[in-house]
Amino acid sequence: MPQTAAEIAARVGAQVEGDGSLVVTGVSSPENAGPEELIYVESARHLERAARSQARCVLLPEGLALAGRTLLRTAEPKLAFSKAAALLHAAAPIAEGVHPTAVIAPSVKLGAGVGVGPYVVIEEDVEVGAGTQLGAHCFVGRGVRIGAGCRLYPRVTLYPGARLGANVIVHSGAVIGSDGFGYVFGEGRQWKFPQLGGVEIGDDVEIGSNTSIDRGALEITRIGAGTKIDNLVQIAHNVSIGEHSIIAAQTGISGSSRIGKRVIIGGQVGIADSCHIRDGATLGAQAGIPTGKTIPAGETVWGTPARPLAKFKQQYAWFARLPELGERVKKLEQEAKD
Amino acid sequence: MPQTAAEIAARVGAQVEGDGSLVVTGVSSPENAGPEELIYVESARHLERAARSQARCVLLPEGLALAGRTLLRTAEPKLAFSKAAALLHAAAPIAEGVHPTAVIAPSVKLGAGVGVGPYVVIEEDVEVGAGTQLGAHCFVGRGVRIGAGCRLYPRVTLYPGARLGANVIVHSGAVIGSDGFGYVFGEGRQWKFPQLGGVEIGDDVEIGSNTSIDRGALEITRIGAGTKIDNLVQIAHNVSIGEHSIIAAQTGISGSSRIGKRVIIGGQVGIADSCHIRDGATLGAQAGIPTGKTIPAGETVWGTPARPLAKFKQQYAWFARLPELGERVKKLEQEAKD
Amino acid sequence: MPQTAAEIAARVGAQVEGDGSLVVTGVSSPENAGPEELIYVESARHLERAARSQARCVLLPEGLALAGRTLLRTAEPKLAFSKAAALLHAAAPIAEGVHPTAVIAPSVKLGAGVGVGPYVVIEEDVEVGAGTQLGAHCFVGRGVRIGAGCRLYPRVTLYPGARLGANVIVHSGAVIGSDGFGYVFGEGRQWKFPQLGGVEIGDDVEIGSNTSIDRGALEITRIGAGTKIDNLVQIAHNVSIGEHSIIAAQTGISGSSRIGKRVIIGGQVGIADSCHIRDGATLGAQAGIPTGKTIPAGETVWGTPARPLAKFKQQYAWFARLPELGERVKKLEQEAKD
Repeated sequence: MPQTAAEIAARVGAQVEGDGSLVVTGVSSPENAGPEELIYVESARHLERAARSQARCVLLPEGLALAGRTLLRTAEPKLAFSKAAALLHAAAPIAEGVHPTAVIAPSVKLGAGVGVGPYVVIEEDVEVGAGTQLGAHCFVGRGVRIGAGCRLYPRVTLYPGARLGANVIVHSGAVIGSDGFGYVFGEGRQWKFPQLGGVEIGDDVEIGSNTSIDRGALEITRIGAGTKIDNLVQIAHNVSIGEHSIIAAQTGISGSSRIGKRVIIGGQVGIADSCHIRDGATLGAQAGIPTGKTIPAGETVWGTPARPLAKFKQQYAWFARLPELGERVKKLEQEAKD
Repeated sequence: MPQTAAEIAARVGAQVEGDGSLVVTGVSSPENAGPEELIYVESARHLERAARSQARCVLLPEGLALAGRTLLRTAEPKLAFSKAAALLHAAAPIAEGVHPTAVIAPSVKLGAGVGVGPYVVIEEDVEVGAGTQLGAHCFVGRGVRIGAGCRLYPRVTLYPGARLGANVIVHSGAVIGSDGFGYVFGEGRQWKFPQLGGVEIGDDVEIGSNTSIDRGALEITRIGAGTKIDNLVQIAHNVSIGEHSIIAAQTGISGSSRIGKRVIIGGQVGIADSCHIRDGATLGAQAGIPTGKTIPAGETVWGTPARPLAKFKQQYAWFARLPELGERVKKLEQEAKD
Repeated sequence: MPQTAAEIAARVGAQVEGDGSLVVTGVSSPENAGPEELIYVESARHLERAARSQARCVLLPEGLALAGRTLLRTAEPKLAFSKAAALLHAAAPIAEGVHPTAVIAPSVKLGAGVGVGPYVVIEEDVEVGAGTQLGAHCFVGRGVRIGAGCRLYPRVTLYPGARLGANVIVHSGAVIGSDGFGYVFGEGRQWKFPQLGGVEIGDDVEIGSNTSIDRGALEITRIGAGTKIDNLVQIAHNVSIGEHSIIAAQTGISGSSRIGKRVIIGGQVGIADSCHIRDGATLGAQAGIPTGKTIPAGETVWGTPARPLAKFKQQYAWFARLPELGERVKKLEQEAKD
């Protein structure tokens, strides 16, 4: 879907300097771009890469100069670049039409234009919204609801009763709605605590490959609209996550923890049960949040057990100086003896 | 399967106070319960939630009062609640009958009432016990043995030769019997060490979604009866785990480590190779157990490298006070100079 | 494929002492071996296990004695044992012939002897090299290239455009080529940064079960020839990994990090974005490498943030002695007061 530089500028909110009739066919990195591909520059530091690029059209902020190109001026070039990419590169279809091998129960309701790939299985009482695409080998359990415009890549499993909003993207291997992990020890063995709750995924959520999201025990596990979840993430029963949060790969969130809106969680973070991570907090990679802990709104924490970043840095600096500190104490002791 | 309060009390070992003929249709949380649903109270702290609930039937310990309800007295309300849930909520079937699309080798022996979902593949020389259910897209490799009453959710992979006991539950995406990770470096490249061993899963084990359990190299990887394993757990070749242990999400257990009975392992724990975690030990979330380490029976450890909880807390408290300690040493040095 | 001791010795580069005509049918551990199975001894420490074994043929280094056996002398018994195992135990076929249920697009080119299991889906413009086997339920997206002699176990997903070299092994549940995790926050929500790049896997790579490898954003994610990746590993967009490296289970490598050749990465390691791990470095289990950090060639690091092993040990020893150090400072303060 090629567009002119002027059309792109209009759509992403940029100002054209130079030839607005230039045709742009796609986005690229400065190194890989051909003449008709769009690139972006965020700061002076990346200007040289852009100058060496073949790209004739460049998104960049005010105050930077680049000769001989069509410049699209914008305060947020990376954001504009992302929007332009969505205009120029239509997502490849995952499934078109309903493949004859799909096993679809009679009571299933498919909206207009739903795509269902080979060997998909859809159980009774499922509803799928218009334009949603289900890749090969997806399994959709009884009573599931999927909104419009969703993209489920091949081999996604939705346990019975799971609810997905509109425009949700789920990558291969993700499992949504599996039983939570709850047992009561008695009489020498583990008894399964009931895992009867639901799971609700909001609009515009994206879920990475091989991620597991458990249903609630007696409540509902909820992922707020616009939240993005990376690969191999574990989300336990009864967790609730607010809107527009970011959860990087291999993070685990234990039962009944609540995550706010616009929270940023790094990779391999562990959040124990019943924590409360308030709006806008940031958890550094590999941080560990102990059971029941609250992280205040907007705070950045690091380490295990997690503490505020400034404190972490200070403590860690002292940790690195421990051998030296030990020597100084030893010297003081010797002086005291003398 | 509704039951009267008296029937439930008899089955879970509780004493009825009030109307034993009350019909109970299911279990719930105090907040969500309707009048015919059973709830439980563990301690005085949760009494108020129960008092506000619509539930007319409540499991609770001696010594707590709640007016106008049918009370089921028991020393362990949460345990009794779990048992009652199993009575009241039959697990939904995963597969009933043998779906015509299943690809089942001629030599496969299916017990009475085995359910096989759409697009299941079962290779030669497999035996499946009575009443076991295999969800859609499961793959069962050559020579596998599955006991009676197992529930394999859609999309479980059993590599050739894997052995499962009775009443095993396996969630979607789990892989059992994949090759262990062993290589020998020589002549400038990695050579695969043979991964020819087996994997044996005991009765009543539950295995979470997207968990990986490798076959042994030359030995057998063993999971003891009644052990429960959460999502995204890694169990390497030759590991042996005792009975009734609990392993939380994203934990990794390296090759040839031995885990005892009734061990509790938190989330994201890493156990290096050839460790020995003895019966009843507890490993805190994110703990790291170095190669070859033994954790004594009944001990609780924390941190990386893991140490006893009391020691961890003491060391960590000092860690937090390091900047202050540094200031105190500086002051002593200045005093010594003066 | 039984062979004589002499034939094996010739193939693995060992010297025969004793009866070279002895028939060997397979490899085993000393404890499990039957008389016709081959075992190995690496050092005097394991000699007793071998002496008690029924095995009549033993790989062992110079300088060790074992009476009444056929000895195959070699400087590297474990390496020779691995080679012998490959000779004696042919890998069981994953798929033979093309199963009639496979859904294969018309333009797909399958090389000679390619095996395709039940319910495999192969989209348009895919090429598969000679002798490659695709297990049941594999999904191969549009435009994928797979080299010769590869083994994809059941239920592997290759997103469109992924490239695999020759003799690649991929275990069940692995996902190759899913979208990277990149968003730009603006106007109160997350915008998807384009994930249009590719993924290239070199010859002789092995990829564990439930591992996720993302495609590049605008670049290519690359795994070098001979590198071995364990289960549940996360490899983010634009990562490049050199040849013959080892990456243990549950490790996560963030966007744009570069890993050299012959690097050894332990389990649960976290590498933040834009790091550079140079050739031959070793990262201890659970290590954390902060954003942008370089680890020099050949260095061994440990801990979070990772530091050289010797320094880590020294700092950690002081950490364990912190309570004692605190007491010593307290005593000095009291003495100063007196």
